[in-house]
Amino acid sequence: MILARVCGTVVATRCTDGVPAARYLLANPTDQHGAAKSGAIIALDTVGAGIDELVLVAQGSSARQTAVSDKKAIDAVIIGIVDLVEETGTVTYRK
Amino acid sequence: MILARVCGTVVATRCTDGVPAARYLLANPTDQHGAAKSGAIIALDTVGAGIDELVLVAQGSSARQTAVSDKKAIDAVIIGIVDLVEETGTVTYRK
Amino acid sequence: MILARVCGTVVATRCTDGVPAARYLLANPTDQHGAAKSGAIIALDTVGAGIDELVLVAQGSSARQTAVSDKKAIDAVIIGIVDLVEETGTVTYRK
Amino acid sequence: MILARVCGTVVATRCTDGVPAARYLLANPTDQHGAAKSGAIIALDTVGAGIDELVLVAQGSSARQTAVSDKKAIDAVIIGIVDLVEETGTVTYRK
Amino acid sequence: MILARVCGTVVATRCTDGVPAARYLLANPTDQHGAAKSGAIIALDTVGAGIDELVLVAQGSSARQTAVSDKKAIDAVIIGIVDLVEETGTVTYRK
Repeated sequence: MILARVCGTVVATRCTDGVPAARYLLANPTDQHGAAKSGAIIALDTVGAGIDELVLVAQGSSARQTAVSDKKAIDAVIIGIVDLVEETGTVTYRK
Repeated sequence: MILARVCGTVVATRCTDGVPAARYLLANPTDQHGAAKSGAIIALDTVGAGIDELVLVAQGSSARQTAVSDKKAIDAVIIGIVDLVEETGTVTYRK
Repeated sequence: MILARVCGTVVATRCTDGVPAARYLLANPTDQHGAAKSGAIIALDTVGAGIDELVLVAQGSSARQTAVSDKKAIDAVIIGIVDLVEETGTVTYRK
Repeated sequence: MILARVCGTVVATRCTDGVPAARYLLANPTDQHGAAKSGAIIALDTVGAGIDELVLVAQGSSARQTAVSDKKAIDAVIIGIVDLVEETGTVTYRK
Repeated sequence: MILARVCGTVVATRCTDGVPAARYLLANPTDQHGAAKSGAIIALDTVGAGIDELVLVAQGSSARQTAVSDKKAIDAVIIGIVDLVEETGTVTYRK
């Protein structure tokens, strides 16, 4: 999984049959300190993540292993809200 | 998923058995402002996207989770037309 | 899918059980003008593509969705020969 | 698979239904000498890996082929603890 | 698939349930001339490849389509030993 910070939302009303009516969030991949890296992905939100929260994103076929994304044309899903990241004994991120 | 802007079409008449007769679009991945990044992908269109529209593209096995791409040798599909992208309270793209 | 230009062949006689006896082509990913990008991939040919032809390549599990690659250890397959690429009204490639 | 060095832990208490209650480790991909490359991934630990250990990480759908990650929204799993890496007759890493 | 040159071995005795007892090789991705590119991957050997041999590597779920890797947490497998690579009529690699 990757770490990403939620930074916005995406609205798309005209969608294909394989897309669940759900909340799609714009998220910036980050390093272990929560600092944004270049690029942004769109991920289906399954946990009620809010703007600026650090989240875990699963990608690929694993993104379909939740109730809302099962058998859907979804390749990225937010699977958890990060409370804490610790690196070699030091807390690098705390919610 | 990624954001991409539709910029053209690709025609391929000699195809393998696993390829649906469908519309294949050339799309440039973009950032959250709709600005093109380098590289272009070819995605099957399932929503009737037009040139210059910002779209959501699903890739990998998830691209096969639509009626037209089911069990086909397709690894990228346009799953929705983006109406609006909002980043930390600011609209960065509106159709 | 990506665009790639066929530039050669690869011969491998000692293969594992999951590899079909087929034609494996060396292909350079290209942009929408057919200009080569760095890197080369090896893809199973399912359409009889020739040297210098621009082709569509499907990757990942979708590469197994053809008769010859079904359930095989193949992660890239040529799914079509490109006749024409058009970008914002201009033909950027014609076979 | 890739080589990675375990460098920390990630705690996420609010997770989606497809996420096993397990240990999630922060890991830096490394070269064959164990030297860190840029980027960090979050992988489910299935072997009891400790901080600073070099591990093998499987990604994508293959990450779901363990008892704990089966049918879960997990795209990276630590599958083994590396004892030794040898390159052209020279040991480049020993635990 | 990609071309890679076998350059070493990796030993990992403490592994998860989804990992076959097999030979894991360190391999450097190469271009069509057999010249190494940066990065190294760990792939399960299914063909008895030796040090310095050029091989074909399949990645992702396709890496599980061999007898030894079936349903295992393996995302890269050596599927063949390359005898010859030819580019636009010129042999660029011969075993």
